[in-house]
Amino acid sequence: MDPGQAVLETVVRDGVFPDGFYSTTNLETWVRIDSRWVTVTNPEMDCGLVVEGEGDALTVRTLPMIDARAGMRVVCGAMGIRVVVPKSEKKSGTFGFMESQVSSEKPQAVLVRQVADGIRECKANGQKVLWVGGPGIVHTGAAGAMVALVKAGFVDVLFAGNALATHDIEASLFGTSLGVDLSQGRGVEHGHEHHIRALNAIRREGSIAAAVESGLLTGGVMHAMVTAGKPFVLVGSVRDDGPLPDVITDVIAGQRAMRAQLDGVGYCLMLATMLHSVATGNILPASVPLVCVDINPATVTKLSDRGSSHAQGIITDVGLFVEQLAVELVEDYRSSPSLMPHRGIG
Amino acid sequence: MDPGQAVLETVVRDGVFPDGFYSTTNLETWVRIDSRWVTVTNPEMDCGLVVEGEGDALTVRTLPMIDARAGMRVVCGAMGIRVVVPKSEKKSGTFGFMESQVSSEKPQAVLVRQVADGIRECKANGQKVLWVGGPGIVHTGAAGAMVALVKAGFVDVLFAGNALATHDIEASLFGTSLGVDLSQGRGVEHGHEHHIRALNAIRREGSIAAAVESGLLTGGVMHAMVTAGKPFVLVGSVRDDGPLPDVITDVIAGQRAMRAQLDGVGYCLMLATMLHSVATGNILPASVPLVCVDINPATVTKLSDRGSSHAQGIITDVGLFVEQLAVELVEDYRSSPSLMPHRGIG
Amino acid sequence: MDPGQAVLETVVRDGVFPDGFYSTTNLETWVRIDSRWVTVTNPEMDCGLVVEGEGDALTVRTLPMIDARAGMRVVCGAMGIRVVVPKSEKKSGTFGFMESQVSSEKPQAVLVRQVADGIRECKANGQKVLWVGGPGIVHTGAAGAMVALVKAGFVDVLFAGNALATHDIEASLFGTSLGVDLSQGRGVEHGHEHHIRALNAIRREGSIAAAVESGLLTGGVMHAMVTAGKPFVLVGSVRDDGPLPDVITDVIAGQRAMRAQLDGVGYCLMLATMLHSVATGNILPASVPLVCVDINPATVTKLSDRGSSHAQGIITDVGLFVEQLAVELVEDYRSSPSLMPHRGIG
Amino acid sequence: MDPGQAVLETVVRDGVFPDGFYSTTNLETWVRIDSRWVTVTNPEMDCGLVVEGEGDALTVRTLPMIDARAGMRVVCGAMGIRVVVPKSEKKSGTFGFMESQVSSEKPQAVLVRQVADGIRECKANGQKVLWVGGPGIVHTGAAGAMVALVKAGFVDVLFAGNALATHDIEASLFGTSLGVDLSQGRGVEHGHEHHIRALNAIRREGSIAAAVESGLLTGGVMHAMVTAGKPFVLVGSVRDDGPLPDVITDVIAGQRAMRAQLDGVGYCLMLATMLHSVATGNILPASVPLVCVDINPATVTKLSDRGSSHAQGIITDVGLFVEQLAVELVEDYRSSPSLMPHRGIG
Repeated sequence: MDPGQAVLETVVRDGVFPDGFYSTTNLETWVRIDSRWVTVTNPEMDCGLVVEGEGDALTVRTLPMIDARAGMRVVCGAMGIRVVVPKSEKKSGTFGFMESQVSSEKPQAVLVRQVADGIRECKANGQKVLWVGGPGIVHTGAAGAMVALVKAGFVDVLFAGNALATHDIEASLFGTSLGVDLSQGRGVEHGHEHHIRALNAIRREGSIAAAVESGLLTGGVMHAMVTAGKPFVLVGSVRDDGPLPDVITDVIAGQRAMRAQLDGVGYCLMLATMLHSVATGNILPASVPLVCVDINPATVTKLSDRGSSHAQGIITDVGLFVEQLAVELVEDYRSSPSLMPHRGIG
Repeated sequence: MDPGQAVLETVVRDGVFPDGFYSTTNLETWVRIDSRWVTVTNPEMDCGLVVEGEGDALTVRTLPMIDARAGMRVVCGAMGIRVVVPKSEKKSGTFGFMESQVSSEKPQAVLVRQVADGIRECKANGQKVLWVGGPGIVHTGAAGAMVALVKAGFVDVLFAGNALATHDIEASLFGTSLGVDLSQGRGVEHGHEHHIRALNAIRREGSIAAAVESGLLTGGVMHAMVTAGKPFVLVGSVRDDGPLPDVITDVIAGQRAMRAQLDGVGYCLMLATMLHSVATGNILPASVPLVCVDINPATVTKLSDRGSSHAQGIITDVGLFVEQLAVELVEDYRSSPSLMPHRGIG
Repeated sequence: MDPGQAVLETVVRDGVFPDGFYSTTNLETWVRIDSRWVTVTNPEMDCGLVVEGEGDALTVRTLPMIDARAGMRVVCGAMGIRVVVPKSEKKSGTFGFMESQVSSEKPQAVLVRQVADGIRECKANGQKVLWVGGPGIVHTGAAGAMVALVKAGFVDVLFAGNALATHDIEASLFGTSLGVDLSQGRGVEHGHEHHIRALNAIRREGSIAAAVESGLLTGGVMHAMVTAGKPFVLVGSVRDDGPLPDVITDVIAGQRAMRAQLDGVGYCLMLATMLHSVATGNILPASVPLVCVDINPATVTKLSDRGSSHAQGIITDVGLFVEQLAVELVEDYRSSPSLMPHRGIG
Repeated sequence: MDPGQAVLETVVRDGVFPDGFYSTTNLETWVRIDSRWVTVTNPEMDCGLVVEGEGDALTVRTLPMIDARAGMRVVCGAMGIRVVVPKSEKKSGTFGFMESQVSSEKPQAVLVRQVADGIRECKANGQKVLWVGGPGIVHTGAAGAMVALVKAGFVDVLFAGNALATHDIEASLFGTSLGVDLSQGRGVEHGHEHHIRALNAIRREGSIAAAVESGLLTGGVMHAMVTAGKPFVLVGSVRDDGPLPDVITDVIAGQRAMRAQLDGVGYCLMLATMLHSVATGNILPASVPLVCVDINPATVTKLSDRGSSHAQGIITDVGLFVEQLAVELVEDYRSSPSLMPHRGIG
């Protein structure tokens, strides 16, 4: 194929390139002028290419926009240009920005909508949506939104640890999460005891379901799961207080209980938990779409480094993410007062 | 004052404490029984205190809830208990959770509302709201929400760099930010050239205001600022492409231009920029309330370490934060289609 | 006490203050001149104070160094100056930089030496040093240094999970850690199977100690602990493969086994594990000095937010930290070839 | 090519696979038995494959190691196995761990040695080593090691901002960095004024070189560069105090000064600065090997997202990294007392 000849245009105004100027990469670049290939002397990205001299003395060099001067000849369009991509580059022939998988600089509202679409498609296929969650869901005030999503049928199975369930129940019984008042965003006196008292209260009842039945537990994520008849698997960890009577304290037994719930799962959403996300990634087939939402890029990096390289990472705030997800998926969600966490779940 | 005597109750059921059990800290603790102070042998947080033996052989030790056995005697209430707080502790007499300033585990919706309240109060006092912003506002799709806040009068002054303005204008002209399509969340072909073409286009017009006047620029944050007649100070940095004609390339001249806008500022909101946040923190009196929103805790830590220790840090996603702030402050915001970034600003 | 009068000196050279100039904070500031207190009009940190006008028209304002002009009168020394500290400030009367607890910008070699001193003091008191470690110790190539520290008697008890022990044994048997060749820093073919084969090999032997006895396991941290006769407690988690036969899979049983080792512990060093650090923090009395080393500030923040507010956080690279610690504590450490991980432990 | 038939072996001991067992991925997998391809029913990574039943009822399923029971038939070796890799996977036919570019879980000592090799090779080719550095080099106590590297000829050009030079000079004049005593790791009284007094002192001298000549400045990185006759380019930023007289305050002039030093550069090492790293990445040809060392993965991610996708990121502590680099490159480095920062540079 004929590579053509480079098209040159003249700079009209200092500091401004002609409209269609060729914008450079930092790779080795050749320009074809008068049927001869000339190398660009100093590759630099985001510059123009200025052509100087004639015949054998002709040179092409990169030039920052601000250094353009009226009368200079600049390469325009993409004809007659060849860029040499190093063999070691993973993606042949491309140069790009924003290609990392763990950037927080992505349009988040769009990502929320893509997750919503994935969940809707999963449900439309008659498959189950698996949620894997950490206590950050409660700490960041997202429990109200998650309750709405449970009620609307978008949470079929929940994998979590003692902490999510305990702080959810703490929020329901005391209006706090790890002692922080969820409606005011600050600690309350004796608040650090609340989760331990919540644990004791549920242990007395014998199980979360029993506490729902007895009328002790009237709100929150766990209440919603019990009421909706949806299964959850709580597996313990060595840092647990209590734990809740529903927690499986043997981790191998816990893995088996999780495996038993995988049948029919068509979408998996992981929220704010490195431990349970990696655990679920370990047992999930790669064919199940997997989205991992965490404010800490290290969680996504670790999940990916542990074999779940197909996981889509969204580096964002879980509280605001779940809130937006509820807005997307649950009709009339906004008209409810559930933005205020303790009312929504207390 | 009489410290009283510890009240003991008996465990009724294995693994469950009596209702009002004393929940321990990890500090040295003494319990008064039969008018004698007995030390707790193994301090551990979130446990109960079990009393065993009689008379001189009487001991008090911590016990995890799960190890409680029917018949054990457990300390209840707070009478007759003394906790020794080490002198080195900053906060005398307290023990608490969630007291760090840089945690991402806070109820975010509440924090949004507190910022909204602060902004409303500032405006009610006839003072100006200063925004300091990085390009993350555009990358995360928050430009539409910020436009709504500008139009509603909640952005009186804007400090930023070349990047925020460039990517905002790129989004307006091309629908992308650093080449990522804001309505689809993925890169487009030749997208990495968009910001450099946007720069060239505005340089041709001579200024952002001229581009608004000529009809080239019809949306986005900078368009909204120009249209609303609100001042902005763009100061350059060594990593800038272009830059935009409005950018002050001498950083000392830039500092002076920023100082000239501080008069009457009553609230300062810093979003997704370490460079301009520290720069603004450097020149701002400590009497101006200061909120720094960033997904990266290091930005808040650094701002604080550079002398702005009164800054309130909110570790969250800027895109979703500004979206929620618009919902809080701008009436009828939701009914607009601005959740979809490129429509809102394109 | 007489606050004195401000001392004024004259600027001699443009852009330079007199030697003893008063360096400002961003707090409300008053200056006493001619026995009258004058307020500083625009508080800004790191500036000088320039005095202009006379009598009732006298003003004092902050001035950046670069704007100093010959002939200006500038406040020198600290006499006649009053700074108003807001009541809400935690630390009365102080203004400072670098006061955050989670900064990575600290002189690390000094911190290593302080930890070394703490460990030496603990041993000199006849107490035990407790290490809590994650697999990052092995991934970052620090196993060789830790082996030297075990042999030299600076590791009395080890709390960890299945991962540290597994990857340590993988490194010993295969020279890799999670499949990454520790002497070359890159993945090897079939490397992702190594840890699972290491697990199977030890399971066949029946225990780590049995594998040492049989001659299968000849190096690494676990080998060193067994050979030195030092106890370790490995508690499982839901993300475990295998696990090793020594791992306690019931987390409550694991907590009890950890508590049983706390007697006599006088220093605790936590390295690269959020899970086991929080678990150990839960059961440790606040009287035991606690140092948490992690590259991720979130680990220190979380540990602190879970009640271990006395923990000293060091945000650094665990691999290089342990290496330096061995240099500090183990005589002739450097002359050994253990910098090269796979030789040291293979 | 004949795919062969799967080889089956029998489990001898509960919980242990035969030696050569096939270790699974989470991808769709087929096994050829009796010349028939059978699909694996529940793909899960890090498991074995157990074969049950006969003829048409024959099934193959994944089995965790711990669930192996004596007598089970398990697939061994890699014959007769086919793994279906999804088309969307970037790397065809592979499955792996630890493939992310921004992990902190790498053997750091090896990475240090690789950087040392790269620098030696660059020097052997007669090319220049370009360092790009932030103030973290000084804060973390690495200035002494960097001084040794300058003296030994491994730093040919330095790009930095006002902060690195200022805190380096502060350390030399006062023994502190941002007010933190580098030999004790904690703040000193009035320490926050030190950097501003250091700035004033150098401004009085007229330049850094003049301060070396006059005998005011006797140690540190900048002193070493001046003494060795090596060029440095300091470009200002909007957050600068002072600045030093050597700082180029116009950022476009600064970019030009940086470009003027690129000729002959054969290796580039970026340390602890996002601003100057991205700025240098902008102007550097992709053909120059580029290593970016930072404790914050976000710096590497951002550098990569700004077009420098070939940058090798090392997530580690800069202080300890430079220390190790000096040990690798500078003969007899260890015998000097420069581990103690303020002595080495004061």
